[in-house]
Amino acid sequence: MKIIVDGMGGDNAPAEILRGCALAVRELGVEALVTGREDALNAAMTEHKICPDGIEFAYAPDVVTMEDPASSVVKTKKNSSMGLGLRLLKEGKGDAFVCAGNSGALLAGATLINKRIPGIKRAAFAPLLPCKTGHVMLIDGGANESCLPEYLEQFGLMGSVYMKKMGFAQTPRVGLVNNGTEECKGTELYVAAHTLLKNNPHLHFVGNIEGRGVMMGDCEVAVCDGFSGNLLLKGCEGAGLFFLGLMKEALTGSTLSKVGALLMKKQLRGLKRRADYTEVGGAVVMGVCNPVIKAHGNSTAKSLKNAIRQAADFAGAGVIDEIRQALATEEGKA
Amino acid sequence: MKIIVDGMGGDNAPAEILRGCALAVRELGVEALVTGREDALNAAMTEHKICPDGIEFAYAPDVVTMEDPASSVVKTKKNSSMGLGLRLLKEGKGDAFVCAGNSGALLAGATLINKRIPGIKRAAFAPLLPCKTGHVMLIDGGANESCLPEYLEQFGLMGSVYMKKMGFAQTPRVGLVNNGTEECKGTELYVAAHTLLKNNPHLHFVGNIEGRGVMMGDCEVAVCDGFSGNLLLKGCEGAGLFFLGLMKEALTGSTLSKVGALLMKKQLRGLKRRADYTEVGGAVVMGVCNPVIKAHGNSTAKSLKNAIRQAADFAGAGVIDEIRQALATEEGKA
Repeated sequence: MKIIVDGMGGDNAPAEILRGCALAVRELGVEALVTGREDALNAAMTEHKICPDGIEFAYAPDVVTMEDPASSVVKTKKNSSMGLGLRLLKEGKGDAFVCAGNSGALLAGATLINKRIPGIKRAAFAPLLPCKTGHVMLIDGGANESCLPEYLEQFGLMGSVYMKKMGFAQTPRVGLVNNGTEECKGTELYVAAHTLLKNNPHLHFVGNIEGRGVMMGDCEVAVCDGFSGNLLLKGCEGAGLFFLGLMKEALTGSTLSKVGALLMKKQLRGLKRRADYTEVGGAVVMGVCNPVIKAHGNSTAKSLKNAIRQAADFAGAGVIDEIRQALATEEGKA
Repeated sequence: MKIIVDGMGGDNAPAEILRGCALAVRELGVEALVTGREDALNAAMTEHKICPDGIEFAYAPDVVTMEDPASSVVKTKKNSSMGLGLRLLKEGKGDAFVCAGNSGALLAGATLINKRIPGIKRAAFAPLLPCKTGHVMLIDGGANESCLPEYLEQFGLMGSVYMKKMGFAQTPRVGLVNNGTEECKGTELYVAAHTLLKNNPHLHFVGNIEGRGVMMGDCEVAVCDGFSGNLLLKGCEGAGLFFLGLMKEALTGSTLSKVGALLMKKQLRGLKRRADYTEVGGAVVMGVCNPVIKAHGNSTAKSLKNAIRQAADFAGAGVIDEIRQALATEEGKA
């Protein structure tokens, strides 16, 4: 399995990205094909004494920054590490692409270069969040500000296939995140999406869930539009950071509490691992023809390695083929 | 100060509601005027040996349940504890109204019975959340699924007056919760609302904030539409419950960690208090002519008491008069 990695994307690129690739080669047995500026990549490899085994390079002079418009990857910055990575993926030079850079550009690039799966109306960002019962995929976490009911139905379908094929659940529960659980709740979009989801025979639709239910484990696939989904996702992130901050204060608030913290070191490590949303990888760019993972912007070597693992599993599990087939069945019926 | 309280609203009514009233009388020096069914209220007072000092009653035969439509309070269930409470408030028989019952009905009743402040286009739910820097008001937390840009501007104004007059901040920072911080971000509604908020001379507008910024303390007033706001609010709640659950597991995971937990008892109590969103009270029904507080549905005596304190402060601080004046100034200028 060879994973293409954008060596220039993310706050800690290229050093942590390259370190993450080396970790992935060593621990996961994959190969990495890293795109980026020749000088920057070579300098980081040397400076940080990163073992080059299993890492190949493909050089591109440009870098899509966080300030660049989404379209830059296919217009002014075609020769960027991101643009090259997506093209190499399309050409079959690797099995999946991992990028910690500009989300909007990655989505636009993946849609325009790798193309949407035939029949899929919109690609979506689908982050995996820790939750009470394990993990939940939020889809759409921010790609589509404005949605039509059929987009939400397809988000449910894609999320369901992913969670099943990746082994998170045998029959993933799909919930529509709404402002109340009653069937009539929400805007016109949500009322119409509810009906479509309910009538889709491929889905185990559990109805509307409230925002609270996302992390409390009400479903494995939490469907919503990209605007509300983004607010919900980032809201949960902020709440998590707030609580972890309070906890840190409590653990270090006095000499006694520091001793207490030492006594529960093992448990606290377990807590941190379960709450860490980078542990399972990044967000899936769902709905395009090749496996693309958006790693967290502040990815460290470890979280980048986790994103590479997720990308390799994603490519190996046949998620995209299964989505194609499910769509073909639907179209056949229609 | 006399606070009217819906004795029948909420999961733990009437016992915890009445207990909360007695607590408020004793600790805050207010009077309570409790509405509800005569038999139920009397039985609870007797059974739980609640001290009747400072508590008056006004009887109503009906109860608006959680399943009743919002309009019931002004149609089929006018003679409910909620309907009577709102009418008594309008007639000046008390200074504020606290209710832990059906939110939709409370909003509809407050809007139709107590009326919107002249010039205010929509009333909003405005919960107060704990955050890194103290507290933040989320407005709208769920009243208006569909909004116009000028509603969001007014939400910012009302929230700002509240946070200032209630002493949370001298010059409250108002943020627009959006899917990115750049000015151009969001749907048409958000782009237009951004411009209105930015140009309003009465506001200290800090621009767009991301969902993460709500609990990370980016502003004192977080403005958004009621649909996304509800998802964000409940999402934060779910995240909080998830983290507290993990923490509880960590604290009780082994004998050693239990000892550790004992050593940091004081710190953990502090954490719990800071994370407890019922500590500051409930959600303000913002934009109507009288002070109305929606207490949490699962209110205990203590959280109900906190909602009564918030209601008394709200009535005493002159928030509504200040909103009237701010609107008059705006209209004069227009």
